[in-house]
Amino acid sequence: MKPLILVTNDDGITSKGIKVLIEEMSELGEVFVVAPDSPNSGMGHAITVASTIHIKKSPIFGSIESYECSGTPADCVKLAKHEFLKDRKIDLLVSGINHGANSSISVIYSGTMSAAIEGAIEGIPSIGFSLDDFDYNADFGHIRKYVREIAAHVLKNGLPADTALNVNFPKASAGPIKGVKVGRQTRGYWHEEFDSRVDPSGRPYFWMGGHYVNSEPKAEDTDVWALENNYVSVFPCHFDLTHYKALAEIKGLEDII
Amino acid sequence: MKPLILVTNDDGITSKGIKVLIEEMSELGEVFVVAPDSPNSGMGHAITVASTIHIKKSPIFGSIESYECSGTPADCVKLAKHEFLKDRKIDLLVSGINHGANSSISVIYSGTMSAAIEGAIEGIPSIGFSLDDFDYNADFGHIRKYVREIAAHVLKNGLPADTALNVNFPKASAGPIKGVKVGRQTRGYWHEEFDSRVDPSGRPYFWMGGHYVNSEPKAEDTDVWALENNYVSVFPCHFDLTHYKALAEIKGLEDII
Repeated sequence: MKPLILVTNDDGITSKGIKVLIEEMSELGEVFVVAPDSPNSGMGHAITVASTIHIKKSPIFGSIESYECSGTPADCVKLAKHEFLKDRKIDLLVSGINHGANSSISVIYSGTMSAAIEGAIEGIPSIGFSLDDFDYNADFGHIRKYVREIAAHVLKNGLPADTALNVNFPKASAGPIKGVKVGRQTRGYWHEEFDSRVDPSGRPYFWMGGHYVNSEPKAEDTDVWALENNYVSVFPCHFDLTHYKALAEIKGLEDII
Repeated sequence: MKPLILVTNDDGITSKGIKVLIEEMSELGEVFVVAPDSPNSGMGHAITVASTIHIKKSPIFGSIESYECSGTPADCVKLAKHEFLKDRKIDLLVSGINHGANSSISVIYSGTMSAAIEGAIEGIPSIGFSLDDFDYNADFGHIRKYVREIAAHVLKNGLPADTALNVNFPKASAGPIKGVKVGRQTRGYWHEEFDSRVDPSGRPYFWMGGHYVNSEPKAEDTDVWALENNYVSVFPCHFDLTHYKALAEIKGLEDII
């Protein structure tokens, strides 16, 4: 029996990236799609707890069973796992291919990776794929074989417990890919610069902007270094937010009252 | 000079929890408020990247400078840090007090904790406070002294690098608090049960529901155990999502193509 592969993303069901991902996954198994009906970039690990989630069957991918969902990427995974596929085993979850990299601190804001992490929480081998190119018509040709081979490897070998893979690809115009680097998330942050404006009714509003600051630009074991040097970056992503190394230092809080 | 304390939350600026938090923080320093103008529960670490963020000065807390924001909790922190307070040092960020616990896996979906984690990313000593009581009129009386003392302790001593504190309190009706426990995030997950309905136009929709499953109910060093046994739970929360222990196991991915 063919493996069952759940596909989702955060750019929405009409994006080019999810189309490419579905084409590649169709080579490996039975594909089932539940994806947002509109862009959900920057959605982080949001879920829809206080309002309704609408779902509509979509003809967009022909014979592949596909649903568009008014909710977030994490909602899509929860709905697929606990409603549409609740009586079946999902062998692999893939999210993306995102238009734009999800490296360093950006992972925490990423809808693409929230879907993969949600899959890992549910015990499904899960991968988030992102291309370092925001263009609507981005060229995905150079990464197709990597997407297929990495997914096939995970289908065959599984992943360590409590792990979602975060896979980022250099853009096509950066030249030939040099290989795959397994590394870690880069330390860094966004220095925001808000563009302050006034709407036609005289009310102030803002656009969020800014630039990324890499706190360790020379660290060759990081995801940003790999991308900047034309490697495919892979890092294992977990969801235990306990900062174990800090436990001893804050133990004194037990005695303050 | 009084320390500068930034207050935000995810239940929105009109909730009881943020009012209590502002009252307690006013005892410790100069309070500045930027909070969502509507409930943002379950918002995770979402940010507003593709649309506008509206801000309005709010008279709700009298002489305390307060703004209501159309964005997410993480947006509120970014706006405060990089726009309103960009020329000042924020000595402490507090988020909450949330109506409802943010323990175990729920931390990843939490707007309250996303604000505290965003503060930690920005290098601000940051705390998220939550009460294990969803009631709109929840009783916060029994936790006021803990909120004040924990915040005062962090103002005086700081926090370990890259750490946001996650503080959860038992509900008032559970009886006297036994003390503070510093521990770790409990392993667990939500088993979702979707309530499927049809709207007046014949279109299907869902409400997300479900129940929490604790994978280690007897582990006395966890946040859920502490809460269930009437302790204040404190755990140090980080934002490095690299699963270091899994690195060696996936190293083989470097050789698949």
